[in-house]
Amino acid sequence: MRNSAPDDRPITQFVARPGVLDLGWGHPRPDLLPTGAWAEATARAMRESGWRALTYGHPAGPAPLIEWLGAGFGRTFVTAGASHALSLVSTVLTEPGDTVLVDAPTYHLALRVLADRGVRLVRAPAGDAAAIEAQVGDLRRTGHRVSLLYLVPTFGNPTGRSLTAAERDALLRVAEAARLTVVEDDTYRELAYDGSPPPALWDLARGADFVVRIGSFAKTVAPGLRLGWVNAAPALIRRLADLGYVDSGGGVNHTTAMTMAVFGSSGAYADHLATIREAYRAQRDALAGGLGVPAPAGGWFLWLRLPAPWTAASLLPEAESRGVSFLDGTRFFAGDGGDGADHVRLSFSLYPPADLAEAARLFRAALSAPSGSAESSR
Amino acid sequence: MRNSAPDDRPITQFVARPGVLDLGWGHPRPDLLPTGAWAEATARAMRESGWRALTYGHPAGPAPLIEWLGAGFGRTFVTAGASHALSLVSTVLTEPGDTVLVDAPTYHLALRVLADRGVRLVRAPAGDAAAIEAQVGDLRRTGHRVSLLYLVPTFGNPTGRSLTAAERDALLRVAEAARLTVVEDDTYRELAYDGSPPPALWDLARGADFVVRIGSFAKTVAPGLRLGWVNAAPALIRRLADLGYVDSGGGVNHTTAMTMAVFGSSGAYADHLATIREAYRAQRDALAGGLGVPAPAGGWFLWLRLPAPWTAASLLPEAESRGVSFLDGTRFFAGDGGDGADHVRLSFSLYPPADLAEAARLFRAALSAPSGSAESSR
Repeated sequence: MRNSAPDDRPITQFVARPGVLDLGWGHPRPDLLPTGAWAEATARAMRESGWRALTYGHPAGPAPLIEWLGAGFGRTFVTAGASHALSLVSTVLTEPGDTVLVDAPTYHLALRVLADRGVRLVRAPAGDAAAIEAQVGDLRRTGHRVSLLYLVPTFGNPTGRSLTAAERDALLRVAEAARLTVVEDDTYRELAYDGSPPPALWDLARGADFVVRIGSFAKTVAPGLRLGWVNAAPALIRRLADLGYVDSGGGVNHTTAMTMAVFGSSGAYADHLATIREAYRAQRDALAGGLGVPAPAGGWFLWLRLPAPWTAASLLPEAESRGVSFLDGTRFFAGDGGDGADHVRLSFSLYPPADLAEAARLFRAALSAPSGSAESSR
Repeated sequence: MRNSAPDDRPITQFVARPGVLDLGWGHPRPDLLPTGAWAEATARAMRESGWRALTYGHPAGPAPLIEWLGAGFGRTFVTAGASHALSLVSTVLTEPGDTVLVDAPTYHLALRVLADRGVRLVRAPAGDAAAIEAQVGDLRRTGHRVSLLYLVPTFGNPTGRSLTAAERDALLRVAEAARLTVVEDDTYRELAYDGSPPPALWDLARGADFVVRIGSFAKTVAPGLRLGWVNAAPALIRRLADLGYVDSGGGVNHTTAMTMAVFGSSGAYADHLATIREAYRAQRDALAGGLGVPAPAGGWFLWLRLPAPWTAASLLPEAESRGVSFLDGTRFFAGDGGDGADHVRLSFSLYPPADLAEAARLFRAALSAPSGSAESSR
């Protein structure tokens, strides 16, 4: 049985649907994953660091990786990915019952990570700092403990957009004045296709204690490694490193972190990043070009508003019957308000340009179908 | 600066103390860590599984590792080590404010992992099931929610001892009758030096929903990998896999799990285990023999009662001045009751036999010092 159908065994999260170009997955293109380079980095880490790469690690993460990351000791904590970082940060910075502000739209699974902490999620469009200031005031006056704001300000998921310089400044001013911790999920920073990405909130705030930055190697190297980091003020880094499970385990992903330090300092990271930037740029252009929509400057996603009377729910069966799929925009908003019903997220990460050009053709064909009948017939 | 003193940078949790044989560390012997075999397994996993080893993994863990572990799909969840397993299990099975029973003595860092959940820890010596039954009854009658019992029943930390067959049966009967979930930390099972280990509570209970078993590769392969697992009834496995951060990350340590599946199925695990069993057996014999105390049948620890009037606190400076150290027994009891003050934990995992024979000699010399003066002079 074991060898009869090896690809049907649950190994990956991704499940292929024959005949469907599924732009719902925010997963890397398989042939871009650095299998050979990772094996080489592992061999070198084992050879050069020996037992130090395999024993219990320093709780905050091993020096070679922290040094390579550049934010410095005391301001960096190595995590098992960005979601793990968000889970740990919410464990330390919130109590169940707290109110947490979340950008709208924002990364849908972050909403679940936060919900698991037992906090109440409230939408707060991050580009409107004045509204957030008023909202925090209202919530606090009515007895809510507002502990933090979560957002993906750079090449955001799902929008692909970035906060402008003015929006960043305004948000930081409000956060500082309101003593509101901003959790900046900076997962997509390195996937910049048209020049440099905007500065991180973390850098703009010069390491002030009201900004926590989350980074990840999931998009730049490989998601399966489960490796990321937190940049924060020293007091928070100490609280993370002092968690019983972190101290007991000797950090949360030591061997992988030691291997990544080799991958980084050997130049493999820079080489790989140049390769994937070029590849994902071409994929972005194929999809955005094929759809005739503006191309985001970075990240993996297009966020499209559908022409009325289409909704994501009515378009989905129409699209899937033609062989293309996507995620419904409502998933990216906390709660059940119905926001995003007229939006879809299309990911251009998983397929090469030719497939994405075809996906764009199929998507346009679905949009050209009679929309009223598509909705009413289901 | 980076290359001036590479060994002083914080890389590992272990910190060498020149001139001290420190038997406080429950860490593997460095030269037994399988650096070459791990590099080989990584290369093979990358070659044979390709992108599947690096992308987002199946949330409960990848099939090749779950199959090799043998408890089956739906009853296994791959974790980032045993401490992570305990952290996740306590997140799902307890609420802050609950009462959690802990064996006495037991693994000291498990106490911190559980305390981080905000539960109240109550000592419950696991060998006395009748007392536990009465204790649970008393606690529940006085309004406490008693959610689980944590113990290391096989080659325990710190005692090295295992529950007898009769104690296991009695504990399971009480747990089933009282609807008390038993969390069996089975970290040391494979380190059996005198024949087979006793059966796991998980196996004795035939997968009943009141037993959760935690396993780990930290002692058998390498702690830095951060890889372990949970065996539990399907409903609990589903709750773990459904955590937002687990789903978002595609499992908690996918690439390492895929590599371990190769390490296991290639025979490298069995070869390595045979090697380290022989090595740790010799280390056990060197320390226990040198001290003239009974040798535990497995695990990494000796748990010694000191002759009066010595206490661990009074002996420590005496021992360290001679060049040997240990952990104070009070660390292994929840709360501040002072239990364990006359006990020490000596680990024989970190040093080769000759060092352990010397450590035993130094320890005995410390015990021969005038104990009253050692205590009163400090």
